[in-house]
Amino acid sequence: MVMKSVSFPQGFRSIVANVGVKESDWDFSMVWTDEPFASSGMYTQSHFAGPSVKISRVVTDNHCASGVIVISGCANVATGKQGFQNAEKVRTLIANKYGLNPDNLLIASTGVIGPQLPIEKISHSISQMDDSHFTDNAFDVALAMKTTDTRLKVAQKDCGHARIVGVAKGIGMMEPNMATLICSVFTDARIPEAELKSIFRGTIEVTFNALSIDTDTSTSDTATIISSGKVEDVETEAFRNALYEVCLSLVKQIASDGEGAGKLIEISVAGAQNTSEAKYVAKSIVNSPLVKTAVHGADPNWGRVIMAIGKCIDVPKIDPDDVTVQFGGIEVYPRSIDDATLTRLSKYLEGDSVSVDVSIGDGPGEFTVYGCDLSSEYVRINSEYTT
Amino acid sequence: MVMKSVSFPQGFRSIVANVGVKESDWDFSMVWTDEPFASSGMYTQSHFAGPSVKISRVVTDNHCASGVIVISGCANVATGKQGFQNAEKVRTLIANKYGLNPDNLLIASTGVIGPQLPIEKISHSISQMDDSHFTDNAFDVALAMKTTDTRLKVAQKDCGHARIVGVAKGIGMMEPNMATLICSVFTDARIPEAELKSIFRGTIEVTFNALSIDTDTSTSDTATIISSGKVEDVETEAFRNALYEVCLSLVKQIASDGEGAGKLIEISVAGAQNTSEAKYVAKSIVNSPLVKTAVHGADPNWGRVIMAIGKCIDVPKIDPDDVTVQFGGIEVYPRSIDDATLTRLSKYLEGDSVSVDVSIGDGPGEFTVYGCDLSSEYVRINSEYTT
Repeated sequence: MVMKSVSFPQGFRSIVANVGVKESDWDFSMVWTDEPFASSGMYTQSHFAGPSVKISRVVTDNHCASGVIVISGCANVATGKQGFQNAEKVRTLIANKYGLNPDNLLIASTGVIGPQLPIEKISHSISQMDDSHFTDNAFDVALAMKTTDTRLKVAQKDCGHARIVGVAKGIGMMEPNMATLICSVFTDARIPEAELKSIFRGTIEVTFNALSIDTDTSTSDTATIISSGKVEDVETEAFRNALYEVCLSLVKQIASDGEGAGKLIEISVAGAQNTSEAKYVAKSIVNSPLVKTAVHGADPNWGRVIMAIGKCIDVPKIDPDDVTVQFGGIEVYPRSIDDATLTRLSKYLEGDSVSVDVSIGDGPGEFTVYGCDLSSEYVRINSEYTT
Repeated sequence: MVMKSVSFPQGFRSIVANVGVKESDWDFSMVWTDEPFASSGMYTQSHFAGPSVKISRVVTDNHCASGVIVISGCANVATGKQGFQNAEKVRTLIANKYGLNPDNLLIASTGVIGPQLPIEKISHSISQMDDSHFTDNAFDVALAMKTTDTRLKVAQKDCGHARIVGVAKGIGMMEPNMATLICSVFTDARIPEAELKSIFRGTIEVTFNALSIDTDTSTSDTATIISSGKVEDVETEAFRNALYEVCLSLVKQIASDGEGAGKLIEISVAGAQNTSEAKYVAKSIVNSPLVKTAVHGADPNWGRVIMAIGKCIDVPKIDPDDVTVQFGGIEVYPRSIDDATLTRLSKYLEGDSVSVDVSIGDGPGEFTVYGCDLSSEYVRINSEYTT
């Protein structure tokens, strides 16, 4: 696992620890600022959203979040009242330890659904925390956040004197209908809260909400941003662009690391009546197991993209005569494919990254989504996860 | 491949042949009656429905179908005008050969999307057909229909003196939104056309439309029924029940033979506000790659069923407190699971067939869907299909 070093923006501190959820690896992190300036959060829409999501939603709705706690290895979902009490207890203990207000602390949990948090062990571990747990490296936090991830997801971008750092985890159960598994963004750019919320929401819509690994939606999806406000006079547009770059980088890192995945798939649909129609068709393609397996095997079976467009029966009108499909610039439909083109296509599909450009008409709607191939390794990982 | 013998109902004849689509295996069949009495058909809703589907739709809408031609190995989809002309030519040639009216012949094609039918070879082969091509065994027809199927799907049921025989093919690209890949049903029961259409539609809704292998919808889904009307005085209810048994048997045969599948999965959802809500939740579970891989690995990770219920955000209200989940009668939610129960659950998941019963409230809506596990073999088969 590649470990580099990325410092958090001004005003943030962070700790990592093992608190007994995992056997010995880090399974706990908190990144916080003592004087929060603004925050925003987006969460899973699952009916089974766990206590962590419910608690965090209250924080970003009613308070200014000052920090985010992440526990990895246990989702704390479908755990009833006990699960709720445990999550609250973790917030209180760690807030007392570091002199924070627990009401301002976000909490996110990820891992197996069902089991309770080992609250006694966690409680004991927090009481034992000392200076050795501090770190200023976002990669340490990413390591403490990970479950089945094989790579650490960190992205950073400066805009003027300000900095944005994003840390994410997650490689499966990923069809975001609001954010993705866990993504925590930190910045020192002094962007007023209303503006920050609007920019963050818009950015998530075209990055994390455009990502799909396996059509399954986590009960724990959480994407948050906290600003310490230490750097003034940051241009809004520069900030928006930098945030987009950070989130897009995380999305591509996640898609490339999709469970068992070897390839990033990027599907762009244009010519739709509107954005949501373009997104619907793009997701139909990127989520098709038959498209995903064909890309995996570098099989030039482009007809499966046609199939995946065809099955979008909620789009009232797609006329096959108006459709064009290109793989990395190689047109496969409607022109007839000769053997030389098939060979070029196979070769193209052997790369690490596959782009498919589809047009379904002459409307103004367009959208790009990100996903990955489907491999035997995905099946292996997910057949053996809890046992 | 198990080959038994099942005769067609009275009044039907059938032929099988190799016409040059596949290298040497049978790739062509026709089953017909010289005096058709009634017929019905249901087809894919794909925007890329091929000429076979379009032609057959006209037959069952405007004529009484007398027979069904099936070509396997080439879907004849995304093939433009040429594809349409080829399909018409096949109908005309075979109709002339056996003295039939081409306008009454259904045609279905299945296989790779994109390539044209080898029309010269087909034309020559039809001209050469002789008595040796006749068969009265429905298994022969199933063999001629198959593509990647590893088992032949035939079902039969008598009701009074009448008989119903169903032949089906298909093990992937299967999320029917109207019938499934190819299913041809033949009967000698004299059921008036209006009644036959209504019974057939109702039966498909709870059998083939309750089947899901991989969420991908074929461009070629075709389910048809033809009655020769040779047997009078068949009770409608007995016929309806027998037809249901035939179709349900085919559905279970298909699910068990899902590409790379080892297990039949049956998901029943009750307590929904209405049938369509129950079906939506049941499909969310049966289609979840994470549920399918857990069943494959006999991993008692029941939390994934919770996740799949939770992600049904189009169902406005699912309260976790009202949800119950059982695997083969073993309750896993909301009760806490002890180790003994987990062990029983693992053992249960090792069987060939896994039933999950879910209740999401106290509404009257219920629905059962059928699917299969997801294996490395599915990935292998579909990574290498055309190459």
